[in-house]
Amino acid sequence: MTLLFQGRRFRVETVSQSTMSGETREREVVRHPGAVTILPLLDDGRICLIRNFRASVNKTLIELPAGTLDPHEDPEQTAKRELTEETGYSAASFELLCAFYLSPGILDERMHLYLATGLTPGQPAREEVELIENLLLPFDEALALIDRGEIEDAKTIVGLLRYDRTRRHA
Amino acid sequence: MTLLFQGRRFRVETVSQSTMSGETREREVVRHPGAVTILPLLDDGRICLIRNFRASVNKTLIELPAGTLDPHEDPEQTAKRELTEETGYSAASFELLCAFYLSPGILDERMHLYLATGLTPGQPAREEVELIENLLLPFDEALALIDRGEIEDAKTIVGLLRYDRTRRHA
Repeated sequence: MTLLFQGRRFRVETVSQSTMSGETREREVVRHPGAVTILPLLDDGRICLIRNFRASVNKTLIELPAGTLDPHEDPEQTAKRELTEETGYSAASFELLCAFYLSPGILDERMHLYLATGLTPGQPAREEVELIENLLLPFDEALALIDRGEIEDAKTIVGLLRYDRTRRHA
Repeated sequence: MTLLFQGRRFRVETVSQSTMSGETREREVVRHPGAVTILPLLDDGRICLIRNFRASVNKTLIELPAGTLDPHEDPEQTAKRELTEETGYSAASFELLCAFYLSPGILDERMHLYLATGLTPGQPAREEVELIENLLLPFDEALALIDRGEIEDAKTIVGLLRYDRTRRHA
């Protein structure tokens, strides 16, 4: 393993991989500490999405709130922190629904999805660099945004459709 | 914009972002050419997934076939090429279902999801470094793998749940 680039939020390393014929090849991968995303479900059935400007794609995306794990942080702790920082809401209960890899061909980032319920509104504590606003929608309207291609963020599509499936089978 | 790292499959650059107070901050982003993933639906209702060893997470994941765009390549062309290379199947028809960003906080990779129908089996042309085998499953069994947490790849969860929604509303 060779360190190729050390950034503030991720690093790039080589990793060895065996080929079909038993040789070894080097492959470049982005190492990331992992992340959480939160599905904040209000008592009235609405969910709290955010509009989030993303410099990487120069576009405001409609997303679930989310954030990166601090070193050695328990993902549920990250979920609590990021939900309040980004939306202002605090939640009485967090339930882990699933975890998934975002782009495992080049990136090891693993995303934990939490359902947050028992929500109480409050003041967000957004970072200076975060251009975020809340978007409260009935759950079925959020699903309609997926159908119309207006939600273009993978973790958000996974979060909404995965919970919709749980809900329909409950 | 400053180039920080040039790899074989992606590069790292800085991008400028305005803060709430109007200042400018630099942010590191991974630049990727974009990708496709394919939902190969057989005439008998089964789908063709793959078991794919991923060096980045040191694990074999169950995924939809997928691949990276060549420079200036039309995504549908990439879908045709990658479906046959990875699974052996060729398809009579490709339909774009949606497109989404995988990890827009750090990565600009945009993934195009195609439904492939009219499938004919053939010989795969896997790369030396690809450790892949086909996994043919009835669609509902693939959904059950999501419920049980055995599918952990975001594009695959999006592809299956997104198409399931289309199918149920057709």
